[in-house]
Formats: sequence, C-alpha cells, structure tokens
Amino acid sequence: MARRAIPDIVIGRLPVYLRALNFLLTEGREITSSQELGDRLGISSAQIRKDLSHFGEFGKQGTGYDIGFLRDQLRQIMKVDRMWEVALVGAGNLGKAIADYGGFAGKGFTITAIFDNDPAKIGMIMGVNHVAVLPVSELTQTIRSNGIQVGIVATPAEVAQGVARTMAEAGVRAMLNYAPITLTVPAGVRVQYIDPAVGLQRMTYYL
Amino acid sequence: MARRAIPDIVIGRLPVYLRALNFLLTEGREITSSQELGDRLGISSAQIRKDLSHFGEFGKQGTGYDIGFLRDQLRQIMKVDRMWEVALVGAGNLGKAIADYGGFAGKGFTITAIFDNDPAKIGMIMGVNHVAVLPVSELTQTIRSNGIQVGIVATPAEVAQGVARTMAEAGVRAMLNYAPITLTVPAGVRVQYIDPAVGLQRMTYYL
Repeated sequence: MARRAIPDIVIGRLPVYLRALNFLLTEGREITSSQELGDRLGISSAQIRKDLSHFGEFGKQGTGYDIGFLRDQLRQIMKVDRMWEVALVGAGNLGKAIADYGGFAGKGFTITAIFDNDPAKIGMIMGVNHVAVLPVSELTQTIRSNGIQVGIVATPAEVAQGVARTMAEAGVRAMLNYAPITLTVPAGVRVQYIDPAVGLQRMTYYL
Repeated sequence: MARRAIPDIVIGRLPVYLRALNFLLTEGREITSSQELGDRLGISSAQIRKDLSHFGEFGKQGTGYDIGFLRDQLRQIMKVDRMWEVALVGAGNLGKAIADYGGFAGKGFTITAIFDNDPAKIGMIMGVNHVAVLPVSELTQTIRSNGIQVGIVATPAEVAQGVARTMAEAGVRAMLNYAPITLTVPAGVRVQYIDPAVGLQRMTYYL
C-alpha cells in the first residue's frame, strides 16, 4: 500500500466517513452503500468509492458495505483503534469545555495533561479524566516524559503561537488549534483548526 | 451560473480558501497561485482551479490570483460580505467561550442573542457583544422577530436535539452544532459539526 501517495484531502474525509458509520451503527444498521453515505454527507458516491479504494476492497458490488467491518478498518487506517494521550493547553472557559467534552470517548483520544499560566487555575481538577491543571512551565517536561504526540491549543490568540512552538519542540506532532490565528509549526508537525466561522461560512451560501 | 449544480464538497472548501487568502493578506502578500494555496492546504492545485472555475475566471494563466480580489469574490459567493445575526444556545463554559470568540469579526457573523435554561445565568451579560442571556423559553419568539437564520448549539448532548428542533421551527436554516450527537433536522436546514475528535483523527494517520 503506497500510503504516501494518498492525498491529504482523502485522509481528511476518513473521519467524516467514520462518524457517519458510527451514527448508522447507533441506529442499529448493519449494511450501507456509498450512495447512502454520500447522500448523508453531501459527497458523491463515486468520490466515496474512490476514497476508500485507496485502502483496499471494503464492499462487494451490489451488496454494499458491512458497516461494522468498514468502521473497524477505518479506525485501524487512521490509527484510532488505540488511545492517544493528549496535552491540553488553556484551562479557561474553552479549555474547561474541551476537558469536559464527552465526544472523545471511543474516538481514540484521552486528555491526560492540562496546562495554564494562571496561578489561580494551577492544581484545579478538571474534565472527564479529573486531571490537575499544571503550570505551562511544566509543559515541555510532561510531554517529553510521557511521549505525548497530540496537543490541543485552547489559549488566547496572543500566546497560541508560543504554546505551539513549545509543544512542537517537546515532541507534539499533531495539534488541534482553537485560537483564531494561523500557527507556524516546524515541518513534520500537523495542525488542524477548529474555526466556528469556517463552519458557519459553509452554510451561508445556501441561505 | 447554475448554482445548484455545484457539489456541497466544493462549497465546503471555499471557507478554507478564504481563510488561507486572509492569512496571505495579513502577511502583506498580493498575488498567489493555485500551487501555493494547494501546498498550504494539502489540496492539489488542479482541484483548487477546478473548484474556483465553478464560479468564474479568477486568475490569468501564468500570473496567478489577485488575493484581495479573489477574497472579495469568495466573500460574495459565500454571502459573508454581509453580517448574519446568530442565536447561541448554551451559556456554560463552551457557550461563554464561543460568545467571547474573537474569530467571528470580519467573517460575516455576530452573536446577537444568547439563551440558557439555567435561571442563574439568565440576565448575565456575555461575550464580545455584551448580550444578556435570555431564557430558552424566549428562543422561538426572538428568532422569529429578528429573522435570525443562523444558530449555534452549545448545550449538553441530552438537550441538543430539542434545541435544534425549536430553532428550525422558528426559522433557523443553518446550525453549528458543538454537542457530540448527530442532529436530525427538517429538510432545508443545514448542520455543520464542530467535532474535535474529527479534527484529531485527521492527523493520527500520519503519526
């Protein structure tokens, strides 16, 4: 399998497929088709078949996809069939909401370290994992000693770039950024943006 | 221009292009190419040219795109060259963070109404617009009388579906959902999901 040849944009759609498959499973469904998935996601069935064909043969002509099997395969491909430790920086309203977020369960992620630079927040117990907030001065050492590769930036915009640089230098390779700025990171480090404005702008075209 | 023929997936990429163009403008740049945009976004230059060709001719062969012009055109196409009033439901940690979010400025959205069902929160002044939190019982009337078409769901998962239904019945046509559930909405209503697990899952493939 020539993994390097698969476009980022295809990889970017896999979690959306996984999400739809999980939803179908909660509805008690067992079989689906590229047509049904496409209708639900606003993606052509041909695109879905082409995307999945990068990774193997998941469906038989005419019988559709076994949802549980395809879900398991996608989880393996995306490497979310394991649990990734996540470092969260920022324990304000947003950080608290992320730490409390119920949607990470079963998706491959668990927030095991939370950081803030506000002395009033250090030591607070936070989130579904009941993690004590640490000072940002301990960020580098915590990431290194735990081998943490995944980080979330939930700080004010002014300090987000510095936090991203520190995390990258300590070994984080995948960052989810909530701050409304574009981060500059070293080669080999990936950033995804949580940007509510982008989400809203995807819909106004149709209004 | 046969707008209905443009795939949702193309429309979904326009805000990402807009975001990249805005970033280039903040760097003082004036001209870019589909190649440069593609490199930044992990999308092929051919895809970008094809996406933009749905809407007209924005670049000249060999000279690239005028960033400011393309930005303005995309804002018009996406209808974010105006200001959309937004109703936010949920004034907990997440709702507070969204109301305080600095990233809506200049993107076409302004949160003008905030709702919660917690009596302790009603009347609190919140967010960049200093909006007083209203009881959820006033949601329908506020949406109707202000003609609000855009909503944000920032409630616990258990009540998100009910809130979405109420908003849709009152006239909201575009919803951004932060709750970790899939919403069922009437035909003609669009939902986008803010799902940090999806953002993280887009990167673990590469780890």
